[in-house]
Amino acid sequence: MGYQVSNPLFAEEIKQSFARQSIMGLLGAELNLIEPGIVEITIASRKDLTQQHGYLHAGVVATIADSAAGYAAYSLMPAGSEVLSVEFKVNLLRPAKGAAFLARAEVIKPGRTLTVVHADVFGISETGARKLLATLQGTMFCMAHAQG
Amino acid sequence: MGYQVSNPLFAEEIKQSFARQSIMGLLGAELNLIEPGIVEITIASRKDLTQQHGYLHAGVVATIADSAAGYAAYSLMPAGSEVLSVEFKVNLLRPAKGAAFLARAEVIKPGRTLTVVHADVFGISETGARKLLATLQGTMFCMAHAQG
Amino acid sequence: MGYQVSNPLFAEEIKQSFARQSIMGLLGAELNLIEPGIVEITIASRKDLTQQHGYLHAGVVATIADSAAGYAAYSLMPAGSEVLSVEFKVNLLRPAKGAAFLARAEVIKPGRTLTVVHADVFGISETGARKLLATLQGTMFCMAHAQG
Amino acid sequence: MGYQVSNPLFAEEIKQSFARQSIMGLLGAELNLIEPGIVEITIASRKDLTQQHGYLHAGVVATIADSAAGYAAYSLMPAGSEVLSVEFKVNLLRPAKGAAFLARAEVIKPGRTLTVVHADVFGISETGARKLLATLQGTMFCMAHAQG
Repeated sequence: MGYQVSNPLFAEEIKQSFARQSIMGLLGAELNLIEPGIVEITIASRKDLTQQHGYLHAGVVATIADSAAGYAAYSLMPAGSEVLSVEFKVNLLRPAKGAAFLARAEVIKPGRTLTVVHADVFGISETGARKLLATLQGTMFCMAHAQG
Repeated sequence: MGYQVSNPLFAEEIKQSFARQSIMGLLGAELNLIEPGIVEITIASRKDLTQQHGYLHAGVVATIADSAAGYAAYSLMPAGSEVLSVEFKVNLLRPAKGAAFLARAEVIKPGRTLTVVHADVFGISETGARKLLATLQGTMFCMAHAQG
Repeated sequence: MGYQVSNPLFAEEIKQSFARQSIMGLLGAELNLIEPGIVEITIASRKDLTQQHGYLHAGVVATIADSAAGYAAYSLMPAGSEVLSVEFKVNLLRPAKGAAFLARAEVIKPGRTLTVVHADVFGISETGARKLLATLQGTMFCMAHAQG
Repeated sequence: MGYQVSNPLFAEEIKQSFARQSIMGLLGAELNLIEPGIVEITIASRKDLTQQHGYLHAGVVATIADSAAGYAAYSLMPAGSEVLSVEFKVNLLRPAKGAAFLARAEVIKPGRTLTVVHADVFGISETGARKLLATLQGTMFCMAHAQG
């Protein structure tokens, strides 16, 4: 939506930060899209990510949504910032079934200290059809770094 | 707080269900306590559960808190029920540091269809000191099963 | 978004129910729009609705957003239902200034028992310009009524 | 819980600020308790605060809980601060019945910029019995003021 970017290296820095999020490797998560104010993360369906009924665990849904939300916020922060999750709320709309899963986060309101973000998590069928599984609303904190 | 239990096998069923939550195995999570309306889950600190600054990822915090919350609700449900997360909100209070982590969930209000649960996640130091890292408030759904 | 309506009298029933919400009269709130899955409520700016800095109190923001959300959910419920708020979360994005305020709620996911709803609250300037002030994500419960 | 107070005039300032929250007058709300990190607000049951079934409207429940939460956070902030609600989530546990209502907020985690607060709202019967109706978890922002 035409958000103003102040850190021209945001996409590269998000890739580097994502690579340092070891949990993303454990889950097999990948960055699918990085744009100003928007980040997408995908994971493939995997047996060892499930809850007791064989669906993707709500916590994994929250994990990829929260990471996408944090990086969406980060994309609009000044160079040298760090992003921390303040809080998020997830509504789980349907059992999390799919061949793969996509979390898409978009900034609702950027701010100097706090950025509010919305994220949707979709199940993706083998034919590529998307179904909305969960929706997240959260707040991200921008920690400015001493630089030099 | 003296909640009434209607399923005398709740503790055994929670253990069996937990064993089927494959994600718990992947994270190295363990059931620490099962009582009527109260469930605790622990995990050890592990490099591959971290975010970019080396702290436990907020999504993993949410994952163990949500599972503990779901089972705390389940402990008060009738035999043959299934529990599903409707929604949860997590406030992250501090960077998630610790030698281990403990999620402790307690039912605030049991109900026939919806149960409201609170959970705290603590970081545990090598000396055993606890520090509150996050707090969750969520809603669990009881799906009754046809039996016979 | 093309939601299916099962109660053809939903709009009339929402108007009647709204008229019985005495608090809406106290706040000077009015129904602005009723469509399947979408309801809007407006209030004028008034000194006796403010918090200590002269902005609309966050609780009033939540009140009109919650009512709009409840009625948006109700619009898709079967005849003879009652709607109850299960939970809602509000993120406050800016100081709530405006000549008037508009809460617009839309159903994200209808369900037999639970309906998930999103609502935005806008400040409206004297020239009619809208500014997003707050965003709500909540769950509504459908209580079926014995009829006869 | 032994929170450290940095503004010795906090109680007096909360009373003055509360008196400026015009909405509190409209609702008939009163400060019931002010302690470091804890604030209580009460209102009497009144026909013009209800929703369509005659219960206290969820938005009014949220309004007194949010104000109590904001002032609980404020009580621990430095002199010359202002407090703003960042977000709150309310779970509604039962129909809000009572001769009067009490919102009791307690700080979970104070912070320089953000303070996390928990609040419970009780219905109070004519004999004084309390019943938990709703529970809130929210974040408050401390805006430091230039002084001089």
